[in-house]
Amino acid sequence: MKTQVAIIGAGPSGLLLGQLLQRAGIDNVILERRSGEYVLSRIRAGVLEQGMVDLLREAGVDRRMDVEGLPHDGVELAFDNRRVRIDLAALTGGKQVMVYGQTEVTRDLMEARAAEGGQTLYEVDNVQPHDLETDAPYITFEHNGETQRLDCDYVAGCDGYHGVSRQSIPGDRLKTFERVYPFGWLGLLSDTPPVSDELIYARHERGFALCSMRSQTRSRYYVQVPLEEKVEDWSDARFWEELKRRLPEDVAANLVTGPSLEKSIAPLRSFVAEPMQYGRLFLVGDAAHIVPPTGAKGLNLAASDVNTLYRLMVKVYHEGRTDLVPRYSQTCLKRVWKAERFSWWMTSILHKFSEDEDFGARMQQAELDYVTGSEAGLTTIAENYVGLPYEPLES
Amino acid sequence: MKTQVAIIGAGPSGLLLGQLLQRAGIDNVILERRSGEYVLSRIRAGVLEQGMVDLLREAGVDRRMDVEGLPHDGVELAFDNRRVRIDLAALTGGKQVMVYGQTEVTRDLMEARAAEGGQTLYEVDNVQPHDLETDAPYITFEHNGETQRLDCDYVAGCDGYHGVSRQSIPGDRLKTFERVYPFGWLGLLSDTPPVSDELIYARHERGFALCSMRSQTRSRYYVQVPLEEKVEDWSDARFWEELKRRLPEDVAANLVTGPSLEKSIAPLRSFVAEPMQYGRLFLVGDAAHIVPPTGAKGLNLAASDVNTLYRLMVKVYHEGRTDLVPRYSQTCLKRVWKAERFSWWMTSILHKFSEDEDFGARMQQAELDYVTGSEAGLTTIAENYVGLPYEPLES
Repeated sequence: MKTQVAIIGAGPSGLLLGQLLQRAGIDNVILERRSGEYVLSRIRAGVLEQGMVDLLREAGVDRRMDVEGLPHDGVELAFDNRRVRIDLAALTGGKQVMVYGQTEVTRDLMEARAAEGGQTLYEVDNVQPHDLETDAPYITFEHNGETQRLDCDYVAGCDGYHGVSRQSIPGDRLKTFERVYPFGWLGLLSDTPPVSDELIYARHERGFALCSMRSQTRSRYYVQVPLEEKVEDWSDARFWEELKRRLPEDVAANLVTGPSLEKSIAPLRSFVAEPMQYGRLFLVGDAAHIVPPTGAKGLNLAASDVNTLYRLMVKVYHEGRTDLVPRYSQTCLKRVWKAERFSWWMTSILHKFSEDEDFGARMQQAELDYVTGSEAGLTTIAENYVGLPYEPLES
Repeated sequence: MKTQVAIIGAGPSGLLLGQLLQRAGIDNVILERRSGEYVLSRIRAGVLEQGMVDLLREAGVDRRMDVEGLPHDGVELAFDNRRVRIDLAALTGGKQVMVYGQTEVTRDLMEARAAEGGQTLYEVDNVQPHDLETDAPYITFEHNGETQRLDCDYVAGCDGYHGVSRQSIPGDRLKTFERVYPFGWLGLLSDTPPVSDELIYARHERGFALCSMRSQTRSRYYVQVPLEEKVEDWSDARFWEELKRRLPEDVAANLVTGPSLEKSIAPLRSFVAEPMQYGRLFLVGDAAHIVPPTGAKGLNLAASDVNTLYRLMVKVYHEGRTDLVPRYSQTCLKRVWKAERFSWWMTSILHKFSEDEDFGARMQQAELDYVTGSEAGLTTIAENYVGLPYEPLES
């Protein structure tokens, strides 16, 4: 087999990149280790930045999002038993975020790819990139019991933190940065109406809580828990009780509870690998960087990598600008580090870190008092939350 | 002896409070452990916020400041061998800071007090407040070999971190918050023209550096050093060389060096005691809180406590509003914690914390890239640097 861009991973990044390339007439093949059903079953993010929404429109996958997605003009911070609304639209000149589940984005992208006749191979094993530092890289893999070879010009590593792409880069060519947080998020999904029209990020002395949603009838809630906590120890009743204790009274009073559809604990981590390219391989999204979920940047940051790589490939194939290829990593990393900063900051001011860190707790309180009491402070949150501008390849 | 307000400490806080009370017709006596000459010999801060400048005007001690002080419309951050100017005036609707040494402020206040006939007792020993929880507190002390007693209505503790005032509060009535930083500032004062018209706060991989000044012919420079460093090991030549290495090349090239007038190492600390009052005792400035010097908030924060206490005393003596007395601490602390936050933040993004904290270093870099690239980000620095608004007693 032969293609122009080989894409490893059929999650939303790989599919979005494939769809954009397809529409630009750039041939591509996606290799995915799992089945399509498995990919769709992963419960993940649900808040899309303005830039990602625009990119989905450019990819032609906005029809269902426009019908079912919920545009949000604001988001709330809760602390000291009170709520402060951050008017995203007013503070950023009209920008919004869109609440539309990652699962739905993935489904739309799968359908669009099928309609365009794009090729995705699911359930491939032993994917292995080769000769990445040459002009003729290729990928070997097993499919339906046979070993196959995919020759290509470039490889896009969209296969996540645990994927083979980053692991294909020699250790001495990669520098990694990491921070692990001493807590996780226990999340619960339920078919109950969201307690509020907008997301609520709550700081409480018992720990962080988040009221989010997937639709007007499906809610997603989270509470900070110690890392050693087991999901089996959290009955639905215990979860709802703990959540209520961490929310302002007027919010807790309106909370509609119900049976969980899914319940899981996720650790929080900040991670960046530099550079984000090696020869003809480009790392995209989680393959190169992880953010803690506070601030909803993970999927959006993957989309901004896709944006950069897509525009680079268009320059390469339509204008012969191979001179721009070495700029992929530095272009992505500018925005990656700013999103890492915002995610780290949101995590830092809203979570409980330890029982005896009194000074740190007061700093959190002072930070919340300051930023919510200052137009400039509110604007810094708003402009990061809706997403900083995409970085241009040439500047 | 008898007075209305007994003030412990004749540093700038005690003197400013005394002067303001004097002009409002509120009787006060200042007790100072040291001599006037000693007080004047202390080399300290030199950047006055707009609010402190206004308060000095209200106290009638602006004549020399207006002649010799240097109004600054901007301040610079240096990193990555480049400089970013923060246009304080443009970002805050015309606010400025005034470069005018603490020594000069103190001298002006001493002269003003002498002119008003205010009473200051220098070189008093064994100052001890009594009966602070009653309606008739008093202070005992030794002066010229005799034990004396000063009866008063209220006691203002302006005697700094090591003073007797805070120590007079029972331990179980006070909660303290502290963070000690793993480095100090080595400062050098010299009669050389400042390298720049405005202050330069520099982040460098070798550590923080600051270019400050006292006048157009007197400079004050600092470099971050490990806490265990000895000032004897720092010749002037070594200091100048280290400073140059940490500054952008264009700044270093213009640096005029010269013999030091003073050289010393100061540790950095964040500290707050709550509440800032106990019975009839009010803590003012360093007696209640310490900030690391990054951001120049120490003296200014003391001035804002003075402002609060002065206005409270006027309400009490002119309008009989003793009901406002319990509000002193909470009014001060709102602003104290915000200044603590800003000082901690400035310290955190500009200093080198450890050799192996790669993620932290990247967060500093990302923070500087973000705030200096965002109008809202620049505004958050500017509005904190010129000083957040004073908090009203009644709101």
